Amino acid sequence: MIKVGIIGATGYAGAELVRIIIGHPETELTAISSVSFEGKKLSEVYPSYRSLCDMECQNAETVVDKSDIIFAALPHGLSQELGAECINKGKAFIDLGADFRLESESEYKEWYNGEFINKDLHEQAVYGLPELFRDKIKGKKLIANPGCYTTGAPLALAPAVKNDIVKTEHIIIDSKSGVTGAGRGLSQTSHFPELNEAFHPYKIASHRHTPEIEQTLSKLADKKVKITFVPHLLPVNRGIISTCYAQLKENITKEQVRTIYKEFYKNEYFIRLLDDGQVADIHNIKYSNFCDISIHIDERTNMLIAVSAIDNMVKGAAGQAVQNMNIIFGLDEKTGLMLVPPAF
Amino acid sequence: MIKVGIIGATGYAGAELVRIIIGHPETELTAISSVSFEGKKLSEVYPSYRSLCDMECQNAETVVDKSDIIFAALPHGLSQELGAECINKGKAFIDLGADFRLESESEYKEWYNGEFINKDLHEQAVYGLPELFRDKIKGKKLIANPGCYTTGAPLALAPAVKNDIVKTEHIIIDSKSGVTGAGRGLSQTSHFPELNEAFHPYKIASHRHTPEIEQTLSKLADKKVKITFVPHLLPVNRGIISTCYAQLKENITKEQVRTIYKEFYKNEYFIRLLDDGQVADIHNIKYSNFCDISIHIDERTNMLIAVSAIDNMVKGAAGQAVQNMNIIFGLDEKTGLMLVPPAF
Amino acid sequence: MIKVGIIGATGYAGAELVRIIIGHPETELTAISSVSFEGKKLSEVYPSYRSLCDMECQNAETVVDKSDIIFAALPHGLSQELGAECINKGKAFIDLGADFRLESESEYKEWYNGEFINKDLHEQAVYGLPELFRDKIKGKKLIANPGCYTTGAPLALAPAVKNDIVKTEHIIIDSKSGVTGAGRGLSQTSHFPELNEAFHPYKIASHRHTPEIEQTLSKLADKKVKITFVPHLLPVNRGIISTCYAQLKENITKEQVRTIYKEFYKNEYFIRLLDDGQVADIHNIKYSNFCDISIHIDERTNMLIAVSAIDNMVKGAAGQAVQNMNIIFGLDEKTGLMLVPPAF
Amino acid sequence: MIKVGIIGATGYAGAELVRIIIGHPETELTAISSVSFEGKKLSEVYPSYRSLCDMECQNAETVVDKSDIIFAALPHGLSQELGAECINKGKAFIDLGADFRLESESEYKEWYNGEFINKDLHEQAVYGLPELFRDKIKGKKLIANPGCYTTGAPLALAPAVKNDIVKTEHIIIDSKSGVTGAGRGLSQTSHFPELNEAFHPYKIASHRHTPEIEQTLSKLADKKVKITFVPHLLPVNRGIISTCYAQLKENITKEQVRTIYKEFYKNEYFIRLLDDGQVADIHNIKYSNFCDISIHIDERTNMLIAVSAIDNMVKGAAGQAVQNMNIIFGLDEKTGLMLVPPAF
Repeated sequence: MIKVGIIGATGYAGAELVRIIIGHPETELTAISSVSFEGKKLSEVYPSYRSLCDMECQNAETVVDKSDIIFAALPHGLSQELGAECINKGKAFIDLGADFRLESESEYKEWYNGEFINKDLHEQAVYGLPELFRDKIKGKKLIANPGCYTTGAPLALAPAVKNDIVKTEHIIIDSKSGVTGAGRGLSQTSHFPELNEAFHPYKIASHRHTPEIEQTLSKLADKKVKITFVPHLLPVNRGIISTCYAQLKENITKEQVRTIYKEFYKNEYFIRLLDDGQVADIHNIKYSNFCDISIHIDERTNMLIAVSAIDNMVKGAAGQAVQNMNIIFGLDEKTGLMLVPPAF
Repeated sequence: MIKVGIIGATGYAGAELVRIIIGHPETELTAISSVSFEGKKLSEVYPSYRSLCDMECQNAETVVDKSDIIFAALPHGLSQELGAECINKGKAFIDLGADFRLESESEYKEWYNGEFINKDLHEQAVYGLPELFRDKIKGKKLIANPGCYTTGAPLALAPAVKNDIVKTEHIIIDSKSGVTGAGRGLSQTSHFPELNEAFHPYKIASHRHTPEIEQTLSKLADKKVKITFVPHLLPVNRGIISTCYAQLKENITKEQVRTIYKEFYKNEYFIRLLDDGQVADIHNIKYSNFCDISIHIDERTNMLIAVSAIDNMVKGAAGQAVQNMNIIFGLDEKTGLMLVPPAF
Repeated sequence: MIKVGIIGATGYAGAELVRIIIGHPETELTAISSVSFEGKKLSEVYPSYRSLCDMECQNAETVVDKSDIIFAALPHGLSQELGAECINKGKAFIDLGADFRLESESEYKEWYNGEFINKDLHEQAVYGLPELFRDKIKGKKLIANPGCYTTGAPLALAPAVKNDIVKTEHIIIDSKSGVTGAGRGLSQTSHFPELNEAFHPYKIASHRHTPEIEQTLSKLADKKVKITFVPHLLPVNRGIISTCYAQLKENITKEQVRTIYKEFYKNEYFIRLLDDGQVADIHNIKYSNFCDISIHIDERTNMLIAVSAIDNMVKGAAGQAVQNMNIIFGLDEKTGLMLVPPAF
Repeated sequence: MIKVGIIGATGYAGAELVRIIIGHPETELTAISSVSFEGKKLSEVYPSYRSLCDMECQNAETVVDKSDIIFAALPHGLSQELGAECINKGKAFIDLGADFRLESESEYKEWYNGEFINKDLHEQAVYGLPELFRDKIKGKKLIANPGCYTTGAPLALAPAVKNDIVKTEHIIIDSKSGVTGAGRGLSQTSHFPELNEAFHPYKIASHRHTPEIEQTLSKLADKKVKITFVPHLLPVNRGIISTCYAQLKENITKEQVRTIYKEFYKNEYFIRLLDDGQVADIHNIKYSNFCDISIHIDERTNMLIAVSAIDNMVKGAAGQAVQNMNIIFGLDEKTGLMLVPPAF
């Protein structure tokens, strides 16, 4: 049994990790930590977990010492030191924060106002989007787990960008996310009476996931790709729809596009490429690690419209982190992730 | 592996059974049927199940023949014949409808306007509320699986009624249910714009679950118990809160009440008796087979207020049906039912 | 034009007062105050009001000086001094808080842990539930505007209690309220991901509105009435359903009950007594000052079930306050309150 | 008083017209019709309107005869004959359907599979988007009232397109609409359990509002404009956000864009151009005739992102229809439309 520790277990991503690890047959949850709730049982913070995880929150160091692998679900900026400690102690470390995601320190400075404390460590870090970078993840110990928007949108566009069938100049990504993405912390924006029956974009063309999406697409395209990215806040708990717009190159047919997507994802269990006429919906992937993708073409304007749906807390956070763990430890990638999305 | 068949698989209770059976380690889903969708894949009706259950809907007879146990999730009135057929063929039969729930034919006539076609069969039928009637379920083949309201409310009141600490004359049960209880069929009431931001009672003092709740409470009290039962429709998908009011007998202390409840449910995995000060919430049991119960006393009026929370589709339908199957087949009752209620 | 001032305009009740006063043809909004947002425009706090109320928040004293009538929507405990100041300056004062609602100082101490600073003032205060106490309101200057639960539940029960057709020993009031009742202040309970798809009772048999409801019912019954009161939190913005249970006295027929209710409310514009077979629903009264009431009888247990629906922010707060103002100033009671509840 | 008749009063747009006309000081609602509910009171269909509009539904002919102006809220295809009848009888006619919206018969054929029965009539018809075409509406009798998407998106883009500061080749409109836009008719899509906590695009690049938006933008641009239009279904009752993307021409600064928008809408009461840093939200315009617009620039990609928020049933249907009526009859355009969007 793999000994798993979770740091930041009382935040939403941490709590979701607990849900998945509880049901994972090859792991044992050995310790959890929380700064705000140290000494409290997790089930006091999340009564859903009564009798399932009554484990007490400890401090981070204890978690590190007791575990083979540490998941960190911390505010950005706090993982660099922790990651170093884990690696030094020979542990595997999966960071659900942003500290190790950007390869360019200048972009990290620009978007996060931080710096790379330990450049060596950044070079060891691998970006954990298995469907695109699986080979690089195998055998590694330090994984930068992608953010939520940065999973769904690239997966929708990857086959097209990789196969060079779209122009990469004016790619537009219009995403809509459930509110758990904003976390457990209170804010007027997520106060029920103000979000219920509401809907609006936010951080328009200035969201920190922008350079991360561009980094992924640029790798696939093998050239610098810039995007316009606008996230919106949905009055639902979970799920992200990314509606991605890219101009098709000339003489690309609908059939070619479909063939390219099918081929690209033919071995991917967690990608469900929908049939012609079907549309991705967050309803169908909630609580699961699936990414549903539907592709559409506006023949009047020769625009590819690729739509992806993921659960921001699963494929967009905790589920993908466990998928990465499975790869690192040589387990079947689906282990513990056969989460059935409920029909309603 | 137990061969499981589901009749009425495209209704909500049937679809929820599929979700649970998919993850049950000791069963194999062998066939499903649907009158409306015969010949269609289940995943065409519920795209959530894409790649997880692409099985085609067949007719009921095929399902019976292929299975060791048949779950029937049919409109009331259609299970008597089907049940007979299953029993005759030596199969186990769990009915999620109401046909076998009431022991009194006159009550069945009064509330369902039907009759007992085969009295013998009704005598074989056992009412499948395991926490109250487990001993009678063991070894049986024909189970009347309780309705949703008829699970949550009796479980909240059982310890008090059984131990004779409340007056049984004026018990009031005020229940609030998520809308999946009304099923997949379309109606103005469950049209999104008319249920969203709405809330109202319905079938006030005339809901068919009334005699079923009374039957259970009367057995526990060993005398005829009458209740006033008012259900309400919540603008949420899942979950029932039953707020139950019963006048405490004199000289019963808060501590005595708590002790009685603790003792009554001490061995029940699926009952989570909350600590003093905590309150049952549908948020905490969604998608799971748990029944959370909180008990409160109005000392000003000497009233016991017992509150239960269940997921109407799990403990109130499909989960309890699987729990009954586990008992019948001698499996650990929790097999396939370790469903973790998500924290959000 | 009546000069209206609102103290505490940036809380939910205050903001709702602004919405109504803006459309009231006989008033002019002269000043608003807010401790948290002094110096800010109301439309910065509530962008809904852009171009409709860009008035700046001032301090309370300025508001008092500029106005003929002051509405105070403050946390409990802050209105006693303010009320004295207004009355001394010859202004009318309508308090949406609880300071003047309870006539008994000992009950005030017990439930609010406060005391009557100025007993004289408390004797001048009138409880502003117009449908029950209109005659006492006329010509008064100091109105204790009822709370939300304390409007809907008494209106549902008043005709029965006043006409002595129910036993008053075991009245049970099971109420369900939209979340705006909890105000604009942030809390984990009203954090979207935790209230959405959730439902639970709270302050069971200990909510501060209990003695206020009892005070009203006791006056109508002309004897001490005790109730069991359990509020619940609905995942909707607005509206309260109160489902009230009272044992009918013997030999009272359904027709008699209906006749009594009809007679009692025959001249009340804001009370809509529903026809037999109809059920009160918050959907139908949202954003309006109506109180819909439906009455039902459980003939099996001889229980009267009276259900009322109000908008907690209108008839349960700001609308009723304006109704009281209209009475005080001799206007038609409906002035400015012809708010049409939208059909969806 | 203007005598108003509503044909199709029991559909959502018709019911919303009733809400507005009830409060309009210069009109009298003389008759309403409904095919499905002829002979029934409107308040039986919409209990919200009890005591406010207990008028009985009649047939269409009666409505025409009794009214000075007829609003028709009918399924597409049924207004051409009715419009002819009204015009022949000297009545004003405002069509909330699509029959008269497209000027090109070939586009009408392509998108609606219909034809212009009476070409004369189509030439008389004016497209009723007052902020863009007010001068043409004055004095007319036959108004094609725009659809919901076709109001919000063009208003967001109009100043930019009219002033030629954006490239019109690759305009993308990503809209998200509340479900009332789909009407009162039942469908699996709007069944509560399937829309709640769901979100998905639909009719991708094939929605009938596409040519109508293009018609408006082409007029403003004075050349043929093609768009990519993708609508999405929000799990809320009301409101549309249109997030519109257009490539800015070179050397256009942020300040210039803002100045152009300010100037364009400086006299428009119903357009609220938000300040820099603010974002349009359906929360702030619900139940009102406002269109909130926020403008943003992605300086990294030189993309203009214009966001509009309207209530699809008011500015997107009934409110705009009344605005058109006010223009036709020479009333102040705001008459009866001073609907305050509630703060929550």
